[in-house]
Amino acid sequence: MAKKQKTFRPKARVPRGFHDRLGPELTAERDMLARISAVYEAHGFDALETPAFEYTDALGKFLPDVDRPNAGVFSLQDDDDQWMSLRYDLTAPLARFVAENYDGLPKPFRRYQVGPVWRNEKPGPGRFRQFTQCDADTVGAPAPHADAEMCALFADVIEAAGIDKHNFVIRVSNRKIVDGLFEKLNLEGDEAAQTRLTVMRSMDKFDRFGADGVTMLLGSGRKDESGDFTDGAALNDAKIETVLSFLNSGPEHSDDPLGVIGAILGDTKNGEEGLRELNAIKSSIPDFAERPILFDCSVIRGLEYYTGPVFEAGLTFGATDDKGRPVRFGSVGGGGRYDGLVKRFKGVEVPAVGISVGVSRLLAALEFTTDAFPRPAGPVVVLALEKDQMAAYQQMAAELRDAGLRAEVYLGGSNFAKQLKYADKRGAPVAIIQGEDERAMGEVTIKDLVLGAELSKNIADNKQWREGQPAQFTVERAELVEAVKQTVSRTSQ
Amino acid sequence: MAKKQKTFRPKARVPRGFHDRLGPELTAERDMLARISAVYEAHGFDALETPAFEYTDALGKFLPDVDRPNAGVFSLQDDDDQWMSLRYDLTAPLARFVAENYDGLPKPFRRYQVGPVWRNEKPGPGRFRQFTQCDADTVGAPAPHADAEMCALFADVIEAAGIDKHNFVIRVSNRKIVDGLFEKLNLEGDEAAQTRLTVMRSMDKFDRFGADGVTMLLGSGRKDESGDFTDGAALNDAKIETVLSFLNSGPEHSDDPLGVIGAILGDTKNGEEGLRELNAIKSSIPDFAERPILFDCSVIRGLEYYTGPVFEAGLTFGATDDKGRPVRFGSVGGGGRYDGLVKRFKGVEVPAVGISVGVSRLLAALEFTTDAFPRPAGPVVVLALEKDQMAAYQQMAAELRDAGLRAEVYLGGSNFAKQLKYADKRGAPVAIIQGEDERAMGEVTIKDLVLGAELSKNIADNKQWREGQPAQFTVERAELVEAVKQTVSRTSQ
Repeated sequence: MAKKQKTFRPKARVPRGFHDRLGPELTAERDMLARISAVYEAHGFDALETPAFEYTDALGKFLPDVDRPNAGVFSLQDDDDQWMSLRYDLTAPLARFVAENYDGLPKPFRRYQVGPVWRNEKPGPGRFRQFTQCDADTVGAPAPHADAEMCALFADVIEAAGIDKHNFVIRVSNRKIVDGLFEKLNLEGDEAAQTRLTVMRSMDKFDRFGADGVTMLLGSGRKDESGDFTDGAALNDAKIETVLSFLNSGPEHSDDPLGVIGAILGDTKNGEEGLRELNAIKSSIPDFAERPILFDCSVIRGLEYYTGPVFEAGLTFGATDDKGRPVRFGSVGGGGRYDGLVKRFKGVEVPAVGISVGVSRLLAALEFTTDAFPRPAGPVVVLALEKDQMAAYQQMAAELRDAGLRAEVYLGGSNFAKQLKYADKRGAPVAIIQGEDERAMGEVTIKDLVLGAELSKNIADNKQWREGQPAQFTVERAELVEAVKQTVSRTSQ
Repeated sequence: MAKKQKTFRPKARVPRGFHDRLGPELTAERDMLARISAVYEAHGFDALETPAFEYTDALGKFLPDVDRPNAGVFSLQDDDDQWMSLRYDLTAPLARFVAENYDGLPKPFRRYQVGPVWRNEKPGPGRFRQFTQCDADTVGAPAPHADAEMCALFADVIEAAGIDKHNFVIRVSNRKIVDGLFEKLNLEGDEAAQTRLTVMRSMDKFDRFGADGVTMLLGSGRKDESGDFTDGAALNDAKIETVLSFLNSGPEHSDDPLGVIGAILGDTKNGEEGLRELNAIKSSIPDFAERPILFDCSVIRGLEYYTGPVFEAGLTFGATDDKGRPVRFGSVGGGGRYDGLVKRFKGVEVPAVGISVGVSRLLAALEFTTDAFPRPAGPVVVLALEKDQMAAYQQMAAELRDAGLRAEVYLGGSNFAKQLKYADKRGAPVAIIQGEDERAMGEVTIKDLVLGAELSKNIADNKQWREGQPAQFTVERAELVEAVKQTVSRTSQ
């Protein structure tokens, strides 16, 4: 007996931290991104596609550590020994593109980009190492008019994605106003850097811990339920009072956020400049009051990265607190002004402002508001009962497609019961049946699978069920398309 | 004097063999892929997205050579020491996905996928290391009905992409028919493998060298113009005659390709089976004769990969030879039956049939047939002449967008001449001008940049030009949108 060599069979598995996506979720995301892209286009933004790879030095990660070349990003060495990395966002490639093509580009330069990015991080539940980003940026336009346009565009984009404008709000803040706060608190110099960080972290916990908790964090420190102690920022009472009134300037607490901030920081250089920029945004946006845009200087997150106005898109879903003011739900995107875009390459500052839509969160929100997330129906399935009639079945499917329906012919060569089971598994609303008898009569049978599933819940007797043949009816072949359309529109209501 | 540290400035450059794409080319491709995807969807195919990475062993490249881990594909080692590679096509990820999820999938399983693939090859002009593929496959459906559906779908897809059905043809062949030819030639065994290869290579040169050249290649060999000699397949005259009549079975040479093949190979086991499959495809497709589908067994390319019917989509652009038969132009996609899809993982054969659209070639063809490739116009540019009127300018742009036009406000803060220059660079059809005077009168000036460019060609005197102010006119503010729409539709004709 010949000895058989064992064949190597790899295990079929998706790589760790990555995932496959199939069907409705994917098409809903694609359609949403198409609606968003159309808004970007209409505003004069041009589509840009950069490759997945950038040179590692251009990404700002310099030469990878040979022991751990993939820390944070996925990197590999090209044949010519240059290190390349998969992009971790769409801003770094934009910086490289603008620096590389600076002289030839119209300025200001508006572009949008949609595509996957990769992060070499520890995967976790719902945290993937590849995901989609959708950004728009205006490069080479100084504040505040470009900021105003970007802010209004952000609102248009979230609405175009499918969120009603009463269900979200763009919160606008300004890095300079927080700088004004530190000016007021005498925390400006390098020696106060650590205190500034502690103050900002404390402020960021206002939602969770409220005024009392933040007072402790800004003062002598706070002990949590588990007994752990967090050191405080050691501010005096007057300064703590200033921070608290700053935090209470948000639209949940005041009808005139900029007025409150003006009263606190209007006499500081940075605060005055930041307020001037926000007021200019307000006056540059037509019908400002009717738009889902609010000033909220208590937004702290993201401020390190940006140099001027900051935007954050949050869902509210009409949820209001007991005073009727909107309650925060979750962020579906952010943006702002950042003026260091191409500095790493060219050594000069080029002003830029951009937004980034949180694609997966926005899609989850759409799924939540079912109206905007129509689940694509499974296709109509035409059963294949006589092998020599395939052209006739394909003709039926073609006519249904011409009428705007998804339709397919069963191709597996199985028996009647298995074909119906397949139609169920595909989520088909309707199965089309034409056996020898129906064909001889010039008829087709239409089986309403949605109604059938409904009826079968209320029937006990299998025999009665089979004999009764509910939820199916026979029409002339020429009436196929009309009858299917009526059945599908009735069951999808 | 403190010594200044030299700042490292990376050179901004796109990685070797990759490219950026901006604007019209990109949106034309996206729209084409959306039209193709809609056809796939209508036929009951579900969208699938797999991640960029697969485990290297799952791709069929096993453990990379440590010295050259990136030969052919881009590979890197994950934190847990497993090798991952970027996918080089969309079929290998499909095989992994089907093997991983086999029991849960409806069978037959129809899916389509659109996305980038990566090849670590030597870059060349027009040859990039990242490009887009667009595939549809039916898994788990035996021949020939699934083959027939795929073939008809292929024609529908190329037409939906934007190519008129008189300008392309799907050529259908069958691996088994070529096997029948080798049966006829007594070239079946392992010992004839090299001869078979020589015969196939010779046949593939029929287009270039004609009957005389191929006769030499099949016989004693051929010397080309440079004096280089190619060894022949050493067939006898009768066998050469058989191959030549086989090659003359194509639709350029015969009105009944399958009849010609039947006369030559109908008595061979493989030939008979292949012909039966092709005739079954013909009878399973409704209105076969009216479709751009032709049998052409002289198509040799791609046959090694497939196990049954083979499809190749070729452009003809109505070009015909002196007998009025279509002339080949270029391939814009291919496909066929391959039954080894998941064998590497599961050890069993699962029948599959698929097509892959040549995205960049098809796009180039669309560009060639300008009707189907409308160049998106640049946006209407609203000049920003008074800084405190930004909301009014943005309002104009918003109204134009609501009317379906692309429109943007100039944001750079420059003077009038520079703003007009920007509008030119953006390809704007029209610039909107409202200075202080126009505003006081409740008017706007519309500058027709297309007509202006036309007129400026025929004018010699700069002074006359400036005074005449041709190609611009003033309307009431309320008539802005209507006037712009009329101007744009006139100039885009």
